[in-house]
Amino acid sequence: MSDNKNKRTPISELGEFGLIDRITGNFSTKNNETILGVGDDAAIIGSDSKMVVTTDILTEGIHFDLVYTPLKHLGYKSVIVNLSDVYAMNATPKQITVSIAISSRFAIEDVEELYSGIKMACDLYNVDLIGGDTTSSLTGLTISVTAIGTANEDKIVKRSGAQKNNLICVTGDLGGAYMGLQLLEREKSLHDQQYNQQPELEGYEYILERQLKPEARKDIIEELAKAEITPTSMIDISDGLSSELMHICKNSGTGCHIYMEKIPVNDQTSDMAKEFNIDPTVAALNGGEDYELLFTVDIKDYDKVVNIPGVTVIGHVCENKDEKVLVTPDDTTIELKAQGWNHGN
Amino acid sequence: MSDNKNKRTPISELGEFGLIDRITGNFSTKNNETILGVGDDAAIIGSDSKMVVTTDILTEGIHFDLVYTPLKHLGYKSVIVNLSDVYAMNATPKQITVSIAISSRFAIEDVEELYSGIKMACDLYNVDLIGGDTTSSLTGLTISVTAIGTANEDKIVKRSGAQKNNLICVTGDLGGAYMGLQLLEREKSLHDQQYNQQPELEGYEYILERQLKPEARKDIIEELAKAEITPTSMIDISDGLSSELMHICKNSGTGCHIYMEKIPVNDQTSDMAKEFNIDPTVAALNGGEDYELLFTVDIKDYDKVVNIPGVTVIGHVCENKDEKVLVTPDDTTIELKAQGWNHGN
Repeated sequence: MSDNKNKRTPISELGEFGLIDRITGNFSTKNNETILGVGDDAAIIGSDSKMVVTTDILTEGIHFDLVYTPLKHLGYKSVIVNLSDVYAMNATPKQITVSIAISSRFAIEDVEELYSGIKMACDLYNVDLIGGDTTSSLTGLTISVTAIGTANEDKIVKRSGAQKNNLICVTGDLGGAYMGLQLLEREKSLHDQQYNQQPELEGYEYILERQLKPEARKDIIEELAKAEITPTSMIDISDGLSSELMHICKNSGTGCHIYMEKIPVNDQTSDMAKEFNIDPTVAALNGGEDYELLFTVDIKDYDKVVNIPGVTVIGHVCENKDEKVLVTPDDTTIELKAQGWNHGN
Repeated sequence: MSDNKNKRTPISELGEFGLIDRITGNFSTKNNETILGVGDDAAIIGSDSKMVVTTDILTEGIHFDLVYTPLKHLGYKSVIVNLSDVYAMNATPKQITVSIAISSRFAIEDVEELYSGIKMACDLYNVDLIGGDTTSSLTGLTISVTAIGTANEDKIVKRSGAQKNNLICVTGDLGGAYMGLQLLEREKSLHDQQYNQQPELEGYEYILERQLKPEARKDIIEELAKAEITPTSMIDISDGLSSELMHICKNSGTGCHIYMEKIPVNDQTSDMAKEFNIDPTVAALNGGEDYELLFTVDIKDYDKVVNIPGVTVIGHVCENKDEKVLVTPDDTTIELKAQGWNHGN
């Protein structure tokens, strides 16, 4: 694509069907469950297992800012956020559909960049693009993705299965995507004020990648299967740890105790949080878009779960559903609130 | 809803999750294939048959104008256009997901109106709402719907199966939705020019309904099954007869002959076309959004297919793929062109 960076061809030159041919032509299907992909009124799929279905819609100016979001990254991320929901059911994603609405300020090359990111995610996560819709909008870009996955029915994990004394586990580290966003927003506003100001992003590559190019925890789902652990409940962390814990507790009819010093936070996240005078724990609790997994397991699985790289036990489920608390190092308890993240999903 | 017509509650009063609870609370699932609906990271579905998946995205100002489109009708239509694609595969729709992006000018009551139309379509077509996403947009309303259906593999009909001497059939009548749109646009522009002008819509209820509240041809799919006819190819007419015939011919590697005087056009469509100095055949060939079915059947099924109410044989498939023609009453042949309809599909 880099040769074409400066070439801008109006979409009207190809028309809707020409554009669809152009962007979907280099996708090939990889899964037996995909019988017919793009090109008819509907795709055809099939599986002996149960299927899970999830969908997300991302709008320009609300979920992403094209000033600092490369279109390829955006395409990649728009797939990842849906795959993350499939993994959160303990299922394996197999197919996606992608619909976009674009205003006339976008050229064919822009759409190709977007789809190169979509293709990269499809290749890395072994998912087939089976359909979609490409249309105009009066302003801006909207992307709607639906993901379909398969799972054995007895392995599907909902939000509602947490039980008293279950261990609460999270993957990776939290708050990074949020602090990456704060950094990007700061540099954008400095750049707006002073045109020649170069953004100072060095040393913060990790949190920038957390924001701009997140991954879904395919690896964890595979490790859990290998360790023969079926979580009792699971959710992906798109709106912040606190909000997701609330969902699990509400759906399971339980409370929870989590321990502040156990919450995994990366050093870059802490450093950036301090620069912004934000408590790193607050970033982890309320910052969104980490796409890590939050799950509960039976206490008998303790030894197995702590041996999975990237999993941290942060607390336990309790019976009293009015007791959803964060325990600080000095043993103070703070009630958790679903502050969440106001960016859609 | 009518009591609430004047009540306008900002969406922020409920928040995203409150809004989802409010709008999905009165949907119940109806199909065995729906195992878990709204409320987790993903829905769970299952079927012994194959599944078909289709999706469409509708944007304000491109696909609909809220000046003359009631939100309830819009919700209904956004479901119908997807169900129509499922029927065009000779499949039965079972589930939909609905995602909306809305700007702050919409109130909770507006979203409820939209979902009341979505619910009406779900009830009438026996389809379950199993998920979606509700988020903000900077401007306007965008609706993205994905529909999933089931079908026995040997009954699924693609665009690619048309063969020489097959009969070309259409359902219902064509061009009505397009002329309904022309009428609505004319009345809107008269109203803009002269504030007190009341729209003159009387006598044109049929074409207005074709535009504002189309139906999907569930009945035809059922009649074809009853008559034990499996079409050799099928597509739904969303972009005009000409464009859809092109798709079937291209995918099947054939040509076609259709006969002008056979193309079914309603009297209101003809009358309105004449008012606009448009040839009614042109409206039928190029006008979009009729959501009728275009299909081909083996000639041995002639007697059975002409007995299905609402089906008209309009021509036949020919071998020469460069011969895609309309035959006029005086036996002139006119080459068909895929002018189509520029409103997505």
